[in-house]
Amino acid sequence: MPSSPASEAPLETPPDAVAIEAAAHRLAGQAVATPLLEWPELNAQVGGRVLIKAETLQRTGSFKFRGAFNKISRLLESGQKPRTIVAYSSGNHAQGVAAAAGLLGLPAVIVMPADAPAIKLAKTRAYGAEVVTYDRRGGESREAVAEAILAEREGTLVRPYDDPDIIAGQGTVGQELVSQAASRGVTLDAVLVPCSGGGLVAGCALAVAERSPGTRVYAVEPEGFDDTRRSLVAHRRLANRPAGDAGHSFCDALLAPMPGALTFAINDRLLAGGLAVSDAEVARAMAFAFRTLKLVVEPGGAVALAAVLAGKIDCRGRSVAVVCSGGNVDAETFCRALAEGDGQG
Amino acid sequence: MPSSPASEAPLETPPDAVAIEAAAHRLAGQAVATPLLEWPELNAQVGGRVLIKAETLQRTGSFKFRGAFNKISRLLESGQKPRTIVAYSSGNHAQGVAAAAGLLGLPAVIVMPADAPAIKLAKTRAYGAEVVTYDRRGGESREAVAEAILAEREGTLVRPYDDPDIIAGQGTVGQELVSQAASRGVTLDAVLVPCSGGGLVAGCALAVAERSPGTRVYAVEPEGFDDTRRSLVAHRRLANRPAGDAGHSFCDALLAPMPGALTFAINDRLLAGGLAVSDAEVARAMAFAFRTLKLVVEPGGAVALAAVLAGKIDCRGRSVAVVCSGGNVDAETFCRALAEGDGQG
Repeated sequence: MPSSPASEAPLETPPDAVAIEAAAHRLAGQAVATPLLEWPELNAQVGGRVLIKAETLQRTGSFKFRGAFNKISRLLESGQKPRTIVAYSSGNHAQGVAAAAGLLGLPAVIVMPADAPAIKLAKTRAYGAEVVTYDRRGGESREAVAEAILAEREGTLVRPYDDPDIIAGQGTVGQELVSQAASRGVTLDAVLVPCSGGGLVAGCALAVAERSPGTRVYAVEPEGFDDTRRSLVAHRRLANRPAGDAGHSFCDALLAPMPGALTFAINDRLLAGGLAVSDAEVARAMAFAFRTLKLVVEPGGAVALAAVLAGKIDCRGRSVAVVCSGGNVDAETFCRALAEGDGQG
Repeated sequence: MPSSPASEAPLETPPDAVAIEAAAHRLAGQAVATPLLEWPELNAQVGGRVLIKAETLQRTGSFKFRGAFNKISRLLESGQKPRTIVAYSSGNHAQGVAAAAGLLGLPAVIVMPADAPAIKLAKTRAYGAEVVTYDRRGGESREAVAEAILAEREGTLVRPYDDPDIIAGQGTVGQELVSQAASRGVTLDAVLVPCSGGGLVAGCALAVAERSPGTRVYAVEPEGFDDTRRSLVAHRRLANRPAGDAGHSFCDALLAPMPGALTFAINDRLLAGGLAVSDAEVARAMAFAFRTLKLVVEPGGAVALAAVLAGKIDCRGRSVAVVCSGGNVDAETFCRALAEGDGQG
């Protein structure tokens, strides 16, 4: 029987530090152990130490490869060799799943909106996946399209975040950054992580709780799409207002409608809180990353850096790690952000 | 007595592997041990393994910090505490010297053209240096301006490339990349290095000759400014045609008029040859770095990558390291390169 789509996530055991350790072993030699970088200019600007986890340099240009590779590896280890890997995503998860399935020798079908950026469609195909498009403007549901493919191909769905193996894979980001900080003698006061469905921040929170329990972990979201921040305050899952009502954000990677069930259970227990940043603050962070860090960071990947630069958290005299989670942005959006964000930062 | 300017470089002993080792010790904890990165997409494109030394992530955004810090440290070790560090540069050397002098507690005066990019003037000042501008259009000579400052302040000149301590500092790039490649089991067939006056490639060639003698090292230059390539063929130093006659290149960091005396003596002995790339090939490499590597690379920093992507060297079945030497480019130039280079790569 094919798996059910993400909206009906079964209750599953949340991952723990052991699962993250196991994920790290699976990813060794496959994922990039991305560098943890530091710039005196940034430190001077905030009056503390800021360590950037440059996950932009990860395979496929975002952290999503980690979770996808861990998940598909686990499926293979469990003996249930999937016939076809299926995912739906308009962006980074698509590329992560496509690349991981290709490496592990499995065919992948990715359901993507027909009007997704051409570069994201092209890159997903370049990793060897079959791309099935649907018309999101015409009201076609990606879940329905995926359901049909799952049934027809006896496929296995790889969810973007609400899955213990995905969370464990993303958690290797947190595990790496704590040990990279420790190797230069730094105990982190805080870790700031971009958040959409919450898989990356949940995984990081688990790893950090295990390895550096005094470190506070924050989820960072775009203004208007700060469902996790509000849910953390309410201690229950709250949705964003429907698209349109919620306003607009150019953080295309961070627009999940509400926190995941599994991810929120972890985040509610472990996070110190949530922070929200405006598009203008994100553009300024992207321009700063261009000018000073020489890193290409996409809008959604830059929200944690934006929070630091905009003073949403006090870094004075403290050591703070910031995850820059992805760099898949087209030239037009990037250059517009540089034009908007320059001279302000 | 103040030092004489670069045009009258005294005969000095060329550096050796021991000098590079000593430079590496001085730079430990000061310079970034920049990552050596690899992308499956790039490997697939060239049919071999390409390892990118991301010196864009170096302090001040280019390799120049290494040589400057080593040189000024050596001045201090020799007991002749300089009163003021003086340099002339319109770009990366200015920032490298300013940052190194600041770290080592010495005042620095950098002579820069009044019409240098505002960001380069601002960043050089931000590292704590005093910037003295001159009018290059009106025919003022930077050497004359520097001479006056050297005399007046009892200053010490830090040359951009034709100095053994500068070459040894830049050589740490080569030393690092060979050992980083070895740590993942790779013996390099070739190393491609951007070249202007030749300090970086000379230092890298010395380090590579010591640690990986079978590896061939190439200097890469912009077309029309390929003085090192032509000099290597002739086995004597040849100048570029005067600016204007030489055409134009947007590789602003690679426009030295001719090879240095000291650097060329090393390069003539150790390099396998020189390669030249067009502005269009460089723009394509910058767009590729943006799109796939998520690295901001300036035109002059991208020439070695351009040579690989344009097939100037056969990478099939081979392992090739490419130095991306700097990322100090303004948004306007960068976005123009993306527009020109996209869709071609």
